[in-house]
Amino acid sequence: MGEKQRTRVRRVPKRAVYEREVIEAILDEALVSHVGTIDEGGYPVVIPTLHARVGEWLYIHGSAASRTLREAERAEICLTATLLDGLVLARSAFHHSVNYRSVVVFGRAERIEASKDKRGALQAFTEKLVPGRWGDARLPSEQELRGTAVLRVRLDEASAKVRTGGPVEEEADYELPVWAGTIGLRIAAGPPEPDDRLLPGVERPDYVTNLVHARA
Amino acid sequence: MGEKQRTRVRRVPKRAVYEREVIEAILDEALVSHVGTIDEGGYPVVIPTLHARVGEWLYIHGSAASRTLREAERAEICLTATLLDGLVLARSAFHHSVNYRSVVVFGRAERIEASKDKRGALQAFTEKLVPGRWGDARLPSEQELRGTAVLRVRLDEASAKVRTGGPVEEEADYELPVWAGTIGLRIAAGPPEPDDRLLPGVERPDYVTNLVHARA
Repeated sequence: MGEKQRTRVRRVPKRAVYEREVIEAILDEALVSHVGTIDEGGYPVVIPTLHARVGEWLYIHGSAASRTLREAERAEICLTATLLDGLVLARSAFHHSVNYRSVVVFGRAERIEASKDKRGALQAFTEKLVPGRWGDARLPSEQELRGTAVLRVRLDEASAKVRTGGPVEEEADYELPVWAGTIGLRIAAGPPEPDDRLLPGVERPDYVTNLVHARA
Repeated sequence: MGEKQRTRVRRVPKRAVYEREVIEAILDEALVSHVGTIDEGGYPVVIPTLHARVGEWLYIHGSAASRTLREAERAEICLTATLLDGLVLARSAFHHSVNYRSVVVFGRAERIEASKDKRGALQAFTEKLVPGRWGDARLPSEQELRGTAVLRVRLDEASAKVRTGGPVEEEADYELPVWAGTIGLRIAAGPPEPDDRLLPGVERPDYVTNLVHARA
């Protein structure tokens, strides 16, 4: 199978999206993605990870001792990020569904070696988790950078799949007296809980309060 | 690599959990999981899917024409479900993290053929999305069951990984005047939106209202 070929969405192609800005927006909104590799025994392995996009590059990172990252470096990987947007209740059990936005990225992962580049990646991860955080936190030491493996994949082979809207039924089922509709889902943030060992007098930064408000 | 061997969590083994009830609770709470297969070209492919657990079996389903399900039937798969529970803000950029609960299941998928068994699986999927829904919806026809592929994997090789609590810092960093703590995350439900073609007089069932309240 050709390398571009596999990026074509085959099931329900009407849900496929190949526009770069849609793909990037989904990757940027999703905090967690799932990376598929093939282990030494030839079996697929799927591990959850954080990812961060910088331009046309998608970064993942972990301990320098991580088995998954070592396997990811040897071969092609598949990284998939999914946002669950809602439950879709159809009149028929068969047509129940979910609204979602997902991106599948294929590519060969390359390891980042230079401290400067690793630091840039860690900045992207930190700012993605909590925008505004990088300037406040103690920056990584050379030793911490050495202990971190950072891989990147170019967003060459990526596709999105998006389902929106209400249920799609068999025409006859629209006459059934069964409630049907959608229930939106989103990730909400709870109140910030300060660390037990927070120094007295350290106030909660605005970017933490803003993050919680944005997800209230 | 032995089949049981791969289920052992290698990175940060203190976060590993092998108790069956923990594994089942995570699988039951997660609506979406990610299934890893190997495609015809030998590359890993990761696709988001809904899953439902019935006892020691984990079910996935899709169109009978689904490429992923066909590939899943040929070989061993890996199914991973992840719940994102919070953001962990450390004083050091390096120790930023997330709280999460994830399960990784390895196994050979087998196809369900009998209509009765397929119907049971669809019941599990429907009840998982919206508890109480199966008794209200129009039940699947024989034709719909034929058009649905259902696979199951036995929960023999499964492990969980769980991170909870606040940041873990280098000892010296606890003296830094930097705010640190956690921000809990959860999936929240919005107000139910009735379908445009809902028949007049059809009221919203209590199980829909209850689901939204439970996720308010």
